[in-house]
Amino acid sequence: MPNRFKRLLIGRPMKSGEIEDEKLSKLKALAVLSSDALSSVAYGTEQILLVLMAVGFAAVWYSIPISLAVLGLLLILVLSYRQTIFAYPSGGGAYIVAKDNLGVSTGLLAGGSLLVDYILTVAVSSSAGTDAITSAFPSLHDHRVLIALTMILFLTIMNLRGIGESASVLAVPVYLFVVAIFILIGSGIVKYMIGGVNAEVHELGTVVSNISLFLLLKAFSSGCSALTGVEAVSNAIPNFKQPAERNAAKTLMMMGIILGVMFIGISLLAYWYGIKPDLKQTVVSQIAETTFGRGMIYYIIQGVTALILFLAANTAYSAFPLLAFMLAKDKYMPHMFMVRGDRLGFSNGIIFLGVFSALLVIAFHGKTENLIPLYAVGVFIPFTLSQLGMMVRWLNLRPKGWWLPFTVNTIGMLTTLAITLIFIFTKFSQVWMVFIFLPIVIFIFYKIRRHYLNVADDLRISLMEDNPVIKGSTIVVPVAGITRVVMNSLSYAKSLTENVIAVYVAFDDEEIDRMEAKWEEWNPGVRLIVLRSSYRSIIRPLIKFIETVEWKNSETDHITVLIPQFITKHWWHYILHNQSSLMLRAYLFTQKDVVIATVPYHFHR
Amino acid sequence: MPNRFKRLLIGRPMKSGEIEDEKLSKLKALAVLSSDALSSVAYGTEQILLVLMAVGFAAVWYSIPISLAVLGLLLILVLSYRQTIFAYPSGGGAYIVAKDNLGVSTGLLAGGSLLVDYILTVAVSSSAGTDAITSAFPSLHDHRVLIALTMILFLTIMNLRGIGESASVLAVPVYLFVVAIFILIGSGIVKYMIGGVNAEVHELGTVVSNISLFLLLKAFSSGCSALTGVEAVSNAIPNFKQPAERNAAKTLMMMGIILGVMFIGISLLAYWYGIKPDLKQTVVSQIAETTFGRGMIYYIIQGVTALILFLAANTAYSAFPLLAFMLAKDKYMPHMFMVRGDRLGFSNGIIFLGVFSALLVIAFHGKTENLIPLYAVGVFIPFTLSQLGMMVRWLNLRPKGWWLPFTVNTIGMLTTLAITLIFIFTKFSQVWMVFIFLPIVIFIFYKIRRHYLNVADDLRISLMEDNPVIKGSTIVVPVAGITRVVMNSLSYAKSLTENVIAVYVAFDDEEIDRMEAKWEEWNPGVRLIVLRSSYRSIIRPLIKFIETVEWKNSETDHITVLIPQFITKHWWHYILHNQSSLMLRAYLFTQKDVVIATVPYHFHR
Repeated sequence: MPNRFKRLLIGRPMKSGEIEDEKLSKLKALAVLSSDALSSVAYGTEQILLVLMAVGFAAVWYSIPISLAVLGLLLILVLSYRQTIFAYPSGGGAYIVAKDNLGVSTGLLAGGSLLVDYILTVAVSSSAGTDAITSAFPSLHDHRVLIALTMILFLTIMNLRGIGESASVLAVPVYLFVVAIFILIGSGIVKYMIGGVNAEVHELGTVVSNISLFLLLKAFSSGCSALTGVEAVSNAIPNFKQPAERNAAKTLMMMGIILGVMFIGISLLAYWYGIKPDLKQTVVSQIAETTFGRGMIYYIIQGVTALILFLAANTAYSAFPLLAFMLAKDKYMPHMFMVRGDRLGFSNGIIFLGVFSALLVIAFHGKTENLIPLYAVGVFIPFTLSQLGMMVRWLNLRPKGWWLPFTVNTIGMLTTLAITLIFIFTKFSQVWMVFIFLPIVIFIFYKIRRHYLNVADDLRISLMEDNPVIKGSTIVVPVAGITRVVMNSLSYAKSLTENVIAVYVAFDDEEIDRMEAKWEEWNPGVRLIVLRSSYRSIIRPLIKFIETVEWKNSETDHITVLIPQFITKHWWHYILHNQSSLMLRAYLFTQKDVVIATVPYHFHR
Repeated sequence: MPNRFKRLLIGRPMKSGEIEDEKLSKLKALAVLSSDALSSVAYGTEQILLVLMAVGFAAVWYSIPISLAVLGLLLILVLSYRQTIFAYPSGGGAYIVAKDNLGVSTGLLAGGSLLVDYILTVAVSSSAGTDAITSAFPSLHDHRVLIALTMILFLTIMNLRGIGESASVLAVPVYLFVVAIFILIGSGIVKYMIGGVNAEVHELGTVVSNISLFLLLKAFSSGCSALTGVEAVSNAIPNFKQPAERNAAKTLMMMGIILGVMFIGISLLAYWYGIKPDLKQTVVSQIAETTFGRGMIYYIIQGVTALILFLAANTAYSAFPLLAFMLAKDKYMPHMFMVRGDRLGFSNGIIFLGVFSALLVIAFHGKTENLIPLYAVGVFIPFTLSQLGMMVRWLNLRPKGWWLPFTVNTIGMLTTLAITLIFIFTKFSQVWMVFIFLPIVIFIFYKIRRHYLNVADDLRISLMEDNPVIKGSTIVVPVAGITRVVMNSLSYAKSLTENVIAVYVAFDDEEIDRMEAKWEEWNPGVRLIVLRSSYRSIIRPLIKFIETVEWKNSETDHITVLIPQFITKHWWHYILHNQSSLMLRAYLFTQKDVVIATVPYHFHR
């Protein structure tokens, strides 16, 4: 039954060889891997304007040069990650690049921040998407946590079904969003050109008295939140169809261009239309309203924007399991993240991500304002480390013409480092947890690896010297009376060794006498020991007895405890039977060095 | 650790022989068993007044004759149950009496209604007690479910500690309540006698034009809610100190007298003071206010009243586990209700009651208006059946002077039957569930008994003819490589039989060759079979192989699957290891007829 439900939910199991069919074409990859980056358009410009408005409306023209700077940074990141793709064709996330070039600890720092960040991505995106919906339909406001959790559940199931199928479903809204924003920008420019907009705007270059470099940097770093998600492509190269590197590089370029055009388009329109950020209406919503009025097209744009915010979470569903796989392969995370599930995805990583992001959403009641700076820091730390790693790589390898890519990575590194520092200095009260949490994660990574190495050490044997040793055998059979189950167990035990002891626990003298007499009458050829229990516990006297047997015989014999287990036809019949045998098993299993053999008795009525 | 927590919560385990010390003296029994009945005083009179006020204030004088009628019924019930105590000294609940004299089905009907009713008692009383608190402190209103659940948890733990200790704790508030109500009645009467009350009251016998017999009966039946809980003593005779019957009978009489005096006292004062029922203030509260003003004494009376309502739930904690024990002894309920816990109470019954009443409180958000009629019907059905049973008993045995107790029981039966019918007719929309729920419960009772009888049938063997049979042995050892764990398992298997097969699951041809070569090099003296898995599952190919072995050898051999199990030092290390062996075990255990032996490997680092 649970199995059939699983099939319905995630589909039939797939052969290992089918993995090539699951790989992504460029168009599908763009949909799966870029929704995080592209969705940033929905809030990037707004973040800049919010900071500038603190000085006054006159400062708003600075949004244009700042947007151009962000665009420049985007160009640097895209070029830099393009270099990474070709340098690390088997997947060059920040973890791999940093570990390879800067040492293991730095790699783990990058990997740890990314893992945490992917969880934050899912929590933040699903909550922000829910915000978009509940702003449009205020009656849903009380159900925001439920809506966000439903979206996480839906994404988890989609990803358990497999990357290919998810891509087919998810490609539609991503492209709808791109088309919708392009139509908005196109129509907006046309409307502005034909003079359909009458807004008072301060010209570029207007002198603003009280603006500071700090403020401009803060606005710039806020605008950089539009760049989260750019790294997704370079992490996911193994998911691409062959030739994987070239396809990945092209996908990255496409994504960069689309993101750049949309971002600068929105920023330009916002400036031309003289739009002020507003707590109740997003910048994109204001532009759409000015361009089209509150009609059909306006609602479509808003709806698609909400949808893409949910899908941004999906990028993390591709990236997290792959990164977890890489860390697990290096023994820094549990083995289970290396197992491909029925549908060839890394199911454990997908489920882990789903559960933890759901917990974050519940813990923060779907209010994610405080998570967003954390989220940005979590992105820019690995950005910086990744590019520092590439710099070191160029310095070490020095291929022909190495100075050009070295320069690209150096500029990238300095910029992302600056942004990271600005984030830390301007929002320390919101990001300090990173400095507690990351060391803990890295400590756990090392602990896990230590454990795996210890285990391997302990289990290693010499093929020449270590060989199985034959010993004697003592079998202890706890019996609850004289029944068919007991007879079967004794048959089994006597077939293996002569050395069988049956044990019975009685609660009073009368019971002891009765059992001993009956056993003598039956005479199954097995010695019976009757124990007396004053505390109505069957398990405690048994354990004491087994300890005595173990103490006496464990040198010469393997000790086996034979536990008869009644197996009923319907699961609910179990509550009708005393589960002492399960409890005895659980105790012996964890505490004692005896073999536990369970002899089943299937009851068919 | 969990064990130490359990000790702290419920105390040290007790020897079976200590049970006599846990038995109840008369005074303790009165506290444990009468709080349900006595607490009814807090709402009994009010229920009558509420019905009469529907006609008008002039009809309120009818509350005096109706209260006298309720008092008469109380007398009948007490006399009747006194007869039951002596007739059934080992506990004469409605279940036993009805089963003995009216047949099994009728007994189960009585037993089923009582079980359900005890759960309702806990839910209703804890919610009503919470109401009393939140009426006094409105700021707690949002936490009412939490308060009720806390009380249920507290009562559950108290009862798990044992009856004796619970009684010591619980006796105090019960006696405080009795003393407080007696002081209230005494002072009230004195105040009325010296003319301290100026209330306009219609004299007894005033003609009320629009009053009907139906309405009077309804008022009478509502007043009968004051009698719930009277049966508790006769169910709990085995809990009494010797001589149990005489002590129980005396306790019942004491309880009847106290309840009767308090009830008629409150009714009289309510009439004399001309009190009208009020949604915001209970009748008892109004009387207390009129008598003492809103001072210290008033608040003490209110507080003790709230407390006794919580304690009413405690009666069910004594009665439910005992009834469940009786039903389990007759195989109508799971065996587990027969097991005495560490502290000699029937822990499973106590926990079951706690959990289900907590679920009811949660499901109804602590609002119990709709549960109260159900609750009353649940009490009066077994009242009626119990007395019908006693009638049949007198007719069958006909001891000397049988006509007198027969008459008592006949009057009792007719009255309680009438009240049951009035409840059903006047409140059908609230009690119809009883007619769906009770047949289901009785059906389950029969199903459980059927299962136990089938099992006993199946397990029975002949001491003369059935004896253990010796067969051969085949041991299958799934191996995950060549490690110390595998070596230990093979040592064990080879010690038992020559017939050992090692099985390895590989994912590709390369792996197959590598493993076979390494095994040959090691040469442990055991045949290795390598299986190929296309679906990355280790378990499915193993199961198929075991099925083949089973099909070939099960006639001549016992088949054992030997599962090496890695046992780590810390529980959290488990997540670092693949739990395939547990899953294999779970599958084989439920589906296959093979013995599963777990060979532990304890890892100490």
